[in-house]
Amino acid sequence: MRDFSADHRWLSINTATVRAQWPLDRIIEECAQRGIRAISPWRDQVAAVGLDKIAKAVRDTGLELSGYCRGGMFPASDAEGLKAALDDNRRAVDEAKTLNAACLVLVVGGLPGALAGKPAHKNLARSRNEVHDGIAATLDYARNVDMPLAIEPLHPMYAADRACVNTMEQALGICDALDPSKSGALGVAVDVYHVWWDPKLKAQIERAGRERLLAFHVCDWLVPTRDLLNDRGMMGDGVIDIPQIRGWVEAAGFKGYSEVEIFSKEDWWTREGGEVLDTCIARHRSAV
Amino acid sequence: MRDFSADHRWLSINTATVRAQWPLDRIIEECAQRGIRAISPWRDQVAAVGLDKIAKAVRDTGLELSGYCRGGMFPASDAEGLKAALDDNRRAVDEAKTLNAACLVLVVGGLPGALAGKPAHKNLARSRNEVHDGIAATLDYARNVDMPLAIEPLHPMYAADRACVNTMEQALGICDALDPSKSGALGVAVDVYHVWWDPKLKAQIERAGRERLLAFHVCDWLVPTRDLLNDRGMMGDGVIDIPQIRGWVEAAGFKGYSEVEIFSKEDWWTREGGEVLDTCIARHRSAV
Repeated sequence: MRDFSADHRWLSINTATVRAQWPLDRIIEECAQRGIRAISPWRDQVAAVGLDKIAKAVRDTGLELSGYCRGGMFPASDAEGLKAALDDNRRAVDEAKTLNAACLVLVVGGLPGALAGKPAHKNLARSRNEVHDGIAATLDYARNVDMPLAIEPLHPMYAADRACVNTMEQALGICDALDPSKSGALGVAVDVYHVWWDPKLKAQIERAGRERLLAFHVCDWLVPTRDLLNDRGMMGDGVIDIPQIRGWVEAAGFKGYSEVEIFSKEDWWTREGGEVLDTCIARHRSAV
Repeated sequence: MRDFSADHRWLSINTATVRAQWPLDRIIEECAQRGIRAISPWRDQVAAVGLDKIAKAVRDTGLELSGYCRGGMFPASDAEGLKAALDDNRRAVDEAKTLNAACLVLVVGGLPGALAGKPAHKNLARSRNEVHDGIAATLDYARNVDMPLAIEPLHPMYAADRACVNTMEQALGICDALDPSKSGALGVAVDVYHVWWDPKLKAQIERAGRERLLAFHVCDWLVPTRDLLNDRGMMGDGVIDIPQIRGWVEAAGFKGYSEVEIFSKEDWWTREGGEVLDTCIARHRSAV
């Protein structure tokens, strides 16, 4: 397992972590100044500044993109909605390509309308079928432009409104079905926050292997957790044995970035951005 | 599948549902008055009134206990703590026997200290081993007095502080290991709130079968869910397809009560108790 204690060569910053403090161009600048080598930006943050401007900033600073957040949200209540989702995913693939991202992360969606508090139905199996079909269609497109798709299993508490793919086993089942040759075009993003509880985690990471481990995200699970979405902890402040999971991921062949992704309405989003980045660097060394 | 639309013969009330309104003796009285045939009380509610008094009230009203809440909480940071947990579980078995409960529900525990916000360690595998050993020891005792133990897999969002058994598959693995003959002494409590998201739910319910399906709990998953513990919804107000899951459970052989268990700090716990019970009756008919 790689030793992270001496530097932050393998730290990536998911730019949601400081989204409350800065626009993306400033985030890029602040990361580059600190010798951070990679980021993973969100589409809305890119759009707010402009894709071309961000692409130039990424090139100028030499930053890598450990991923691009995010495609997905495939389920819909009608054919028009399903088509719109596919169109949007193709745009996401194109943007990821423009930014030279390592992969497009897929948060696949749950029950249509649920995120707005108005679920159109309760048929989770239907949503899962739509996710399968949506990934299949997007994969056809993404293969052509050589942009890997990383399915991110989300914690089961997001099954209704954000993602109905909730375990590594389930995500890898989709990978087996749609990319049986393990071409590298389809894989998973392992976020410790979403999967740390899973009794089958180690086995499923081994199953995924090098070809399907496309991204590794870190933060921490706080006790108590006060909000389902925006109370993720800084690495070391919660109960996840992050080094153990990183050990499993590396043993399976993953040698990429550890991407810090923290949503924290009442803590990290309220602090000065430089303090947040400096803490990410310190904790990457001590707790990842 | 049984038709529940005409009566509430198979409704049970988990007494936490109206714990904010009434002491347990009053709850028993109010349930009996409404023709509710079963309850599942919590140990602290029993203790607050007195075990003998509650046992008498249960006998006098002819109420059945669909379960007794709860044993478990096995993990501890030292040998003394582990022993104290086993002692406490034997007392819970005895109380369940005194009350003639159908089973003792086990909420197995997570990382020791986490519920108080001070986890003693991050080793979830250690806790899982302690849970396995704790159930084994308690089962030895419970078999002697003929009290079935029902392992309740809790939603993964409770893995740290309440239960590190988080899927049906995991719970049934423990059952296979400790009661391979499917004697009926060890099984599972299926709570739709905890397991509805699981892509393997149907298959695992089939695997459980009649011998291991000891209890069936209902409420609903709200979108958005505003609190990890105390924001469970009334059946019909959320996104869980409860009739579908009940259909699976019944097809596997379960013909017992549907036990309503709602923790709801900002809604149902603030209403008049009679309104809550009447709503449980109505929703049992229309949404279960």
